[in-house]
Amino acid sequence: MGEFDLIDRYFKSAVRQGRALLGIGDDCALWRPEPGHDLALSCDMLVEGRHFLPDVSPESLGHKALAVNLSDLAACGATPQAFLLALSLPHANAHWLAGFSKGLLALAHEQGCELIGGDTTQGPLNVCITVMGEVPTGQALLRSAAKAGDDIYVSGTLGDARLALEVHHQHLSLPSEALAFCQRRMDRPSPRVALGQALRGLAHAAADISDGLIGDLGHILKASGVGAELDLTAVRSLCQTVQTCPLPEALLDTCTLTGGDDYELVFTAPQQARSSIEQAAARCQTVVTRVGKITADSSLIVRLGDQAIDTSRLRSFDHFN
Amino acid sequence: MGEFDLIDRYFKSAVRQGRALLGIGDDCALWRPEPGHDLALSCDMLVEGRHFLPDVSPESLGHKALAVNLSDLAACGATPQAFLLALSLPHANAHWLAGFSKGLLALAHEQGCELIGGDTTQGPLNVCITVMGEVPTGQALLRSAAKAGDDIYVSGTLGDARLALEVHHQHLSLPSEALAFCQRRMDRPSPRVALGQALRGLAHAAADISDGLIGDLGHILKASGVGAELDLTAVRSLCQTVQTCPLPEALLDTCTLTGGDDYELVFTAPQQARSSIEQAAARCQTVVTRVGKITADSSLIVRLGDQAIDTSRLRSFDHFN
Repeated sequence: MGEFDLIDRYFKSAVRQGRALLGIGDDCALWRPEPGHDLALSCDMLVEGRHFLPDVSPESLGHKALAVNLSDLAACGATPQAFLLALSLPHANAHWLAGFSKGLLALAHEQGCELIGGDTTQGPLNVCITVMGEVPTGQALLRSAAKAGDDIYVSGTLGDARLALEVHHQHLSLPSEALAFCQRRMDRPSPRVALGQALRGLAHAAADISDGLIGDLGHILKASGVGAELDLTAVRSLCQTVQTCPLPEALLDTCTLTGGDDYELVFTAPQQARSSIEQAAARCQTVVTRVGKITADSSLIVRLGDQAIDTSRLRSFDHFN
Repeated sequence: MGEFDLIDRYFKSAVRQGRALLGIGDDCALWRPEPGHDLALSCDMLVEGRHFLPDVSPESLGHKALAVNLSDLAACGATPQAFLLALSLPHANAHWLAGFSKGLLALAHEQGCELIGGDTTQGPLNVCITVMGEVPTGQALLRSAAKAGDDIYVSGTLGDARLALEVHHQHLSLPSEALAFCQRRMDRPSPRVALGQALRGLAHAAADISDGLIGDLGHILKASGVGAELDLTAVRSLCQTVQTCPLPEALLDTCTLTGGDDYELVFTAPQQARSSIEQAAARCQTVVTRVGKITADSSLIVRLGDQAIDTSRLRSFDHFN
């Protein structure tokens, strides 16, 4: 199977006709922008052993590779439109490609995000997706817009994907049902695309949580020149697994505060928007939880009751540390 | 050096302010499209041993990674605007990063193409760039627009990059000056961005020559439902090296017809556009050479004088064959 057969068989033929003037099969894809909209663009590269385990199913990997990119669009409140896929493969394995393209394109269709181009090559397994979304002019959610007094919210659940990794590293064992949930959170994240769009005009600042809450909230704080207080009890409650399985507190804190691979949104909004935020979240069938507030100084404090907790032992995931 | 330090030090700080509403440092980059324009998007992934040799200088690699993408924009007649860089590195090597970003950003500035986002991770060396350009609505050059009777043109020179690879594989030796030229053609291709834009409204079909003339012209023929006759004498003359060094004819044909890594344009235009094409090329200070014509049937015939040449032994580069 040659490079062009591979593209035809697993990607080109599976793509539904969409908005692209020209999709796969020329030097460039062509796209006519929607007047009155800005483009949001993001790019994520997934490497074996870093972003996924060697035994991940190709279908889950296809899903995850697009999901992590859609999560970036969600954080900006953008509507997904199109993506380009670059794929480096050790060899053209039909079984693998069938599964990968199935998982990838199922999510693409579900989210109305069209595959318009890309590249394939032989080499160590590497999946790089660039995604493009649209947002009405000037309405994108930014990291830099948090204001002192804002509530801090987190969507969905936190820490369960990290628990799956801890089990994989044999630091922990979990009952099979709880493990299956954690595994699914790690392998098949749900990008909060509908919520991101629903938060336009309501939320101030937003970011996606890919490297852990402390790290990604930290990006908002730095960009906005503000600080935050987090309520650790509320943060701990975001872990689904702890509802049914007892977990050591230190592990629970590590997983919820610095876990990584959550692909939830952390966002800030003024207190008077509370009921609007709840309604927006309900419309998107996504739970959101208030976990703290933005402060005027520049520090991030985690409180348990009246006590400030030392978080220096916790660190967000960094690809080069 | 952490991931964010790395981005700040070698990429963010080096980027000049441009058209992006928001560049590196949020979940997405934000871009406001120019009214009356279509977007052209392309993505190329470069892997060690496939697209570059392990001993390539980081500066050349930075140049080449962007150049091959700009070449795709050139083939559509698009004006480069912005790009996203995804980089997987075995480790954060300051010397390597300084060289790579220097080569990359020098070409980016020269071409007015702004770095607006991307991703960095640890893993086997892999450089993936997605580039975005603009073209006035409906004016993009397509592979599918060739017409029977069109002249076929090639820009610049062909086959010299392949000769450098042949020398590397010890299939050939060349005098040092000739080798230096070939090496430069392989490591630092010149994307024909200005020519591509100048051909809008003049040329019918265009493609960039990255996998060899026969293969890339073949894409035009297939997409346009036409055939072609190539004049082998004209094609052979496109090799710069053979002007000063004798080369075996079989090698010369392999290099010029199927060489790969040329990053020139092959395009078709009606005969009555000959003088306009020459003027456009002269304005861009790029030589263009007529090498054949488009025919109404669907075969690609290479002629040497009156004889049709058997090209079955020649094959374009394919990443999975």
